[in-house]
Amino acid sequence: MRHTPAGPELDRLISLLAKLPGFGPRSAKRAALHLLRKRQEVMEPLALALTQAAEKVVTCSICGNWDSVDPCAICANQTRQTGIICVVEDVGDLWAMERSGAHKGLYHVLGGVISPLDGVSADDLNIASLAQRASAGGVKEIVLATSATIDGQTTAHYLQERLENLGVELTRLSHGVPVGGELDHLDEGTLAAALKSRRPL
Amino acid sequence: MRHTPAGPELDRLISLLAKLPGFGPRSAKRAALHLLRKRQEVMEPLALALTQAAEKVVTCSICGNWDSVDPCAICANQTRQTGIICVVEDVGDLWAMERSGAHKGLYHVLGGVISPLDGVSADDLNIASLAQRASAGGVKEIVLATSATIDGQTTAHYLQERLENLGVELTRLSHGVPVGGELDHLDEGTLAAALKSRRPL
Repeated sequence: MRHTPAGPELDRLISLLAKLPGFGPRSAKRAALHLLRKRQEVMEPLALALTQAAEKVVTCSICGNWDSVDPCAICANQTRQTGIICVVEDVGDLWAMERSGAHKGLYHVLGGVISPLDGVSADDLNIASLAQRASAGGVKEIVLATSATIDGQTTAHYLQERLENLGVELTRLSHGVPVGGELDHLDEGTLAAALKSRRPL
Repeated sequence: MRHTPAGPELDRLISLLAKLPGFGPRSAKRAALHLLRKRQEVMEPLALALTQAAEKVVTCSICGNWDSVDPCAICANQTRQTGIICVVEDVGDLWAMERSGAHKGLYHVLGGVISPLDGVSADDLNIASLAQRASAGGVKEIVLATSATIDGQTTAHYLQERLENLGVELTRLSHGVPVGGELDHLDEGTLAAALKSRRPL
């Protein structure tokens, strides 16, 4: 199918851009026009950056993070607390944790969540390597930072059962009112959780 | 500035993706993660498509459209009505007109609108070549299809003055209620225009 009255190169570019998350056929067309207007400033550098990132970025053999080096910069960083491992679903969640600046330890990226509906079982995730790291000694605490979704919580439960006899403390993120969030716009589940785990002033 | 705890290649990719229209730093990160997950299916083909489109896509020397060939497929198409030229602001507007399927003639892409605030004057647009086409003979009608914005209308007025003595009929798109649009959500200007140019049933 031709997307535009333009040539096959432009057509192909638009159909590939439309595969980016948040992009549809319409925004892909707008992006393609923008790129063609800025060939030297954006289009050619972007082509190069895509090629280089596809070549260079590898999965860290220790934690599953993505970086240009293996082990990744976080695993190789001598100043991080090696006794705490924060378990996240994917690299995007790791970045979110790093943005908060609150976690000074290491990470373990599962690469997804257990989801019978999507055909993802525990064996499809980086769980064996997590158990190995946990039992290798030196790890005091594992923070299960999977999402507060059904699949995320199922995965956390599974990890809890799998890891609880290794002599490592297991913790999870607290539930509560988001900082800056209005009570009025909050769902009942979160409000109930925030009330339940209320703290003295 | 580092955007992520990942390497320089990933960082550079994210800052370039963030320059796409509709993308910000956050969606650029999500897109980068998506691309890395689909290296063979999307990332490498996209890099190639960008390179090829940057190399191959040229501006049509007749109408200013973008295509892999010059003259473009529309100008070279023998079945189009060569007597009608539709004047649009940019290639995106040309594509929109082609989607409608209502225009069977040729196009002329101005490459923008006259905008004193943005420092764009008539000399920066493909207006001289339009006047040339109009006076070369064979053109019966020129449809001024610039946007219904202030700059678009200013440009249309300028074109009207510039082209009116060439013996070519000048027309513009009609204003009115968008097909499928609810009156309640429509601005007063459009409603007034729709009422003024009402038609007998």
